[in-house]
Amino acid sequence: MGKVITLLTDFGLKDSYVSEMKGVIYSLLPDVAIVDISHEVRQGDISSASFLLLRAYRYFPRGTVHLVVVDPGVGTSREVLCCRTENYYFIGPDNGVLAPAAENDNLKYIFSLNLEELPVALKEVFSGSFILEKIKTPSSTFHGRDIFAPFACYVSTGSPIIRLAVKKERMVATSLPKPVLTEGGVKGHIIYVDRFGNLVTNINVSLIEKDSEVFLKSGYQVISFGKLKRAYAEVKQGEPLALIGSFGTLEIAVNGGNASEKLNATVGDEVLVMKK
Amino acid sequence: MGKVITLLTDFGLKDSYVSEMKGVIYSLLPDVAIVDISHEVRQGDISSASFLLLRAYRYFPRGTVHLVVVDPGVGTSREVLCCRTENYYFIGPDNGVLAPAAENDNLKYIFSLNLEELPVALKEVFSGSFILEKIKTPSSTFHGRDIFAPFACYVSTGSPIIRLAVKKERMVATSLPKPVLTEGGVKGHIIYVDRFGNLVTNINVSLIEKDSEVFLKSGYQVISFGKLKRAYAEVKQGEPLALIGSFGTLEIAVNGGNASEKLNATVGDEVLVMKK
Amino acid sequence: MGKVITLLTDFGLKDSYVSEMKGVIYSLLPDVAIVDISHEVRQGDISSASFLLLRAYRYFPRGTVHLVVVDPGVGTSREVLCCRTENYYFIGPDNGVLAPAAENDNLKYIFSLNLEELPVALKEVFSGSFILEKIKTPSSTFHGRDIFAPFACYVSTGSPIIRLAVKKERMVATSLPKPVLTEGGVKGHIIYVDRFGNLVTNINVSLIEKDSEVFLKSGYQVISFGKLKRAYAEVKQGEPLALIGSFGTLEIAVNGGNASEKLNATVGDEVLVMKK
Repeated sequence: MGKVITLLTDFGLKDSYVSEMKGVIYSLLPDVAIVDISHEVRQGDISSASFLLLRAYRYFPRGTVHLVVVDPGVGTSREVLCCRTENYYFIGPDNGVLAPAAENDNLKYIFSLNLEELPVALKEVFSGSFILEKIKTPSSTFHGRDIFAPFACYVSTGSPIIRLAVKKERMVATSLPKPVLTEGGVKGHIIYVDRFGNLVTNINVSLIEKDSEVFLKSGYQVISFGKLKRAYAEVKQGEPLALIGSFGTLEIAVNGGNASEKLNATVGDEVLVMKK
Repeated sequence: MGKVITLLTDFGLKDSYVSEMKGVIYSLLPDVAIVDISHEVRQGDISSASFLLLRAYRYFPRGTVHLVVVDPGVGTSREVLCCRTENYYFIGPDNGVLAPAAENDNLKYIFSLNLEELPVALKEVFSGSFILEKIKTPSSTFHGRDIFAPFACYVSTGSPIIRLAVKKERMVATSLPKPVLTEGGVKGHIIYVDRFGNLVTNINVSLIEKDSEVFLKSGYQVISFGKLKRAYAEVKQGEPLALIGSFGTLEIAVNGGNASEKLNATVGDEVLVMKK
Repeated sequence: MGKVITLLTDFGLKDSYVSEMKGVIYSLLPDVAIVDISHEVRQGDISSASFLLLRAYRYFPRGTVHLVVVDPGVGTSREVLCCRTENYYFIGPDNGVLAPAAENDNLKYIFSLNLEELPVALKEVFSGSFILEKIKTPSSTFHGRDIFAPFACYVSTGSPIIRLAVKKERMVATSLPKPVLTEGGVKGHIIYVDRFGNLVTNINVSLIEKDSEVFLKSGYQVISFGKLKRAYAEVKQGEPLALIGSFGTLEIAVNGGNASEKLNATVGDEVLVMKK
């Protein structure tokens, strides 16, 4: 072992899609460890997928290949990318899903896969593999199995990426908003709602001055949460609070409850942090 | 590593059932790789499980043991089978769930497990294993853990199957329908609806003549999809289309949407492909 | 391989939380096998989690580290425990979630983690690991990744637990009820409802005399199930029955159906077994 490939898709776990990707990966790399980041991304939700990748990527061993298949443009001419960063490889479609994580880890090179070279290069590296015959004519709707998975295996071996890809200067940018410094403090947005209904913002702890107060704009309402708390249990059961979440940014939560439902708030809503 | 066992059940992921099977497997085969095909099959839905197995089995390394526990007859006298095919082993109850995949991979032998020989043979191969004592008296409702999982481990080692099973000529046939060639083209059926609402049919690409047109019969309606498309993006967002899916058969989909909901169509509905 | 760490949380699979824990674990122990017991425990449902752990723990190899993060008290002063039992290690918050399993496996020692020693001890055992820098300042809301996961890795290596923890005599007790012997038989409770709607009780098979009859009290109703059956198929489709489940306790089920819905029964309801 030692090598890790992570998977992040919107395929769900009901069907066999994810398992087919894993079958291809184990066929080519019997000793790899495969970790699911999530397969429950909403269909085509590039923004949420890019957030999950940005959160999770850094907790994996150096050299991990992070493979993302949230790919509403499958079958069109959108490109297939591999980003080489300081510590990791990121593989996915050129739709912005890789950008936040790759840039966060000090992006070094962007490669665009040459689809015609892929089967040739695979044959060189994994000569004689049983599986190559089965994926050599890619399905037009499931590049995850037929293109992305074997490409990730190729990259995971450390083989030269330039053999089957060309460098490019730019990729599609992220649609995740950035926080803005204002006179009174910081203005940011909810960028993700987790399973517990916690409202994750893009306002990093480093932007928040001591004793600032937190506000949420939801529809016509402005809700105040007072100062940052340290733990859920600092407020009563069912009460809302603002705290720094495990992503290192401001989060709005309800102790033992669901903030998104209770506050009727969701991705895109504005959050303000006002200096004292 | 190198050895793979796949799991396909209707146990879901909320309870600990699947993990107990994995615990038994790792107890007997510490170096195996376990891949989940799906555990979200609807309770007792043999037909959908057999479809998922048929799709996925071929993407795994030669020698993989595919274990299926969708077993409404657990505790009755239904037999426990191991099918030896050209490249794989298939283990599951004798209820038709293995048939499509095993026959597709050139079925060689069908074995029926002798339940009384199982604990004896396990002791020979995995002598001294801590776990054997715990599963030696099988629960009447959870053969997945107590019978199927250790049987799969035994088979995965390459030990002679005939030691604990008898050959048989026939197994319960599949209930998946087959497409029929008609004067005007091909008549088939929807055999699976995936997480995205895509309608997967049993009409293989090889049966479809160039420029054929596709129709769906749903209730009293007949819906036309025109000719096959190559990719979702060839029609507008929200529009339906027919294309060849990643299983190599005709699928009906909605670009960026849910065809099953939009067309009110589901498993069993008739699909017609008419020659030009 | 050979080493196993199991995970049992209420984090769900939609977000990246579980994957971040796995990333940390593979960073420290590249050759470990990680098995998910469940991540679909209802938020903060300590009782159900403790039941799943009690069911599943025993089917894993000796030396397995069972890690449970169902932790409504995260960020408060609740302690982090490691229970050393006859065959396993159990790690989790001191809220009762470990107690049933640890006591069932002949509890030997209870250790309480010294949070300040953790990063120092990790550095000694996993010197130079890339990941340690990233988790050295634990988030106040996600101890699963920053404290529990690395603690589990430390324990899995067999390093002395006393290096970073102190022994204690007692832990928070379980809230799972115990069955009571009565003059007429046994009185117990439903302690878990599984995905199929099966009603799992705490009445062990060893407490049930031959030919006893089974009753369920649900609201003002008392429902009789007659004597124990051996298999679902002994009653007609849709009919309820009582049998010994795969946990070795009395269960109430509906053949091919959902007993919880059909009988309107759930956790906490009383079950009576009356001697003949």
